[in-house]
Amino acid sequence: MTTAAVIGAGVIGAGWVARFALSGWDVQIYDPNPTSQATVQQTLARARKHVGNLRTEPLREGRLTFVETMPQALLSAEWVQESLPESVELKLKILSEIDALTEQVVPICSSTSGFKPSVLGEGLGSAERFFVCHPFNPVYLIPLVEVVPHPTVAPELLADVKSILRDLEMKPLHVRREIDGHIADRLLEAVWREALWLIHDDVATTEEVDAAIKNGFGLRWAQMGLFETYRLGGGEQGMRHFLAQFGPALQWPWSKLTDVPNMDAAFIEKIATQSDDQAGTDSTEELAERRDANLVGILRALSETDD
Amino acid sequence: MTTAAVIGAGVIGAGWVARFALSGWDVQIYDPNPTSQATVQQTLARARKHVGNLRTEPLREGRLTFVETMPQALLSAEWVQESLPESVELKLKILSEIDALTEQVVPICSSTSGFKPSVLGEGLGSAERFFVCHPFNPVYLIPLVEVVPHPTVAPELLADVKSILRDLEMKPLHVRREIDGHIADRLLEAVWREALWLIHDDVATTEEVDAAIKNGFGLRWAQMGLFETYRLGGGEQGMRHFLAQFGPALQWPWSKLTDVPNMDAAFIEKIATQSDDQAGTDSTEELAERRDANLVGILRALSETDD
Repeated sequence: MTTAAVIGAGVIGAGWVARFALSGWDVQIYDPNPTSQATVQQTLARARKHVGNLRTEPLREGRLTFVETMPQALLSAEWVQESLPESVELKLKILSEIDALTEQVVPICSSTSGFKPSVLGEGLGSAERFFVCHPFNPVYLIPLVEVVPHPTVAPELLADVKSILRDLEMKPLHVRREIDGHIADRLLEAVWREALWLIHDDVATTEEVDAAIKNGFGLRWAQMGLFETYRLGGGEQGMRHFLAQFGPALQWPWSKLTDVPNMDAAFIEKIATQSDDQAGTDSTEELAERRDANLVGILRALSETDD
Repeated sequence: MTTAAVIGAGVIGAGWVARFALSGWDVQIYDPNPTSQATVQQTLARARKHVGNLRTEPLREGRLTFVETMPQALLSAEWVQESLPESVELKLKILSEIDALTEQVVPICSSTSGFKPSVLGEGLGSAERFFVCHPFNPVYLIPLVEVVPHPTVAPELLADVKSILRDLEMKPLHVRREIDGHIADRLLEAVWREALWLIHDDVATTEEVDAAIKNGFGLRWAQMGLFETYRLGGGEQGMRHFLAQFGPALQWPWSKLTDVPNMDAAFIEKIATQSDDQAGTDSTEELAERRDANLVGILRALSETDD
């Protein structure tokens, strides 16, 4: 048995709680938000069901403890996972408190989707055990976790951290060069901007954009990435042929990616209303249930065809 | 029984042949490239196996005829699908020949991933039956087809075309406003640019970019789109909360999307070499086999959880 401290228990933090607990870790949870305990319990109940369908052996579940203060959460923890809102100031403040309250051998990991570890590690006395470990929602099912070590981290500790993440049945991706947004969110940000323009200019609704993704390239990307897919698009001659054929198209004045739409109130309302229409009467919980059942099906399907 | 004319039988055209033939259509194929017949036969063999695993009733297969001239391919055809290389000049020339050689009631569809129907329809005498029907590789498995009618197309014909595509077990997405790259390729183009920068700047290799996609958001997008996913990321408060939380992040100077990397020979070689390393000893056919088995698994999994 091992103990993790989860600091911040919104959607992502609660997902980490489930990921740890269903791998047999005890979890100590600190989040001053009064709704966080309900979020964690709801997330764990959902995760228990779906992770149970995915794994072959029975789940061995650790103990959850909700605590009132951060020092209580950190007591005897062997892993700290910070999942606070994306504010540098807030993260810097809390991370330096965590640093002061934990043994210097304990890995401190931030779930930040955007900030570099060298930025968030600035106020730490022992930044050589600080990492970005950026997961993806739902954290208890999506295997990817981007691991970006602080520049002072030793290779041995990086190896240990990756090994622990693998024990949690995750697929750690070592991001070798610090960059805002790491890797996945750079790509997501690009899609997001372009999608916003499509909505903004009334080319498509949110539902149509989603249909274009999930009935098309989303099905490819669940099991092959961009480059693998395009390699196949090049036929027998592979990637070189693809690049020769489609490289020049990059020069076409297609996209408006040079600019960011003004996120004014009317535009935000437009997106949110379209999203409401798209969801219809489905509650968030119903959507999440369906997502999880789908993901389990996909992951099982992929493991059956795995070499 | 119905007859389709497939003009141009590379990767996409051959995929259309399989999509039509395995839905019981006879297909007349014209492509002067001497390797196209082998491409079609190989594609059809692969499709037969995988589409067979996906459908519940036995496949009813139409007859293929490879012809030497375009008029032979068009004879008695009730659907024309053009899948030539992405050159406006070439497509304009061939489409106007097709227009002159077919009854004015027959839909003429282009597989173009980028050009608008009003551009490609310029030389047609009867553009009111001209569509972009943009499919996704592998055409015989991926359900999405973007349907962009020429501005002069009547609603009744659009409805007929969508109905035929549904009979082919596809999911037509009517793109209501003409735009270069339609919808999906706008999004793909955005990801592609950003991915190229990541490779260019040595932040990640092609394999690492692919891992970031397929172990992460690719698994989400096989069954939910961008907006549905982000709605869940907003928790109970949905899309408005998500936009309030992450909208401002769009203003961060994250990405280099304002610029296109110079696709010089060295950069193309870098990408192609990384892609070779990534593929290892797997042949294109082995990769395609694995992709198809995965897709069938995913699609079956998704249909099992369908409401």
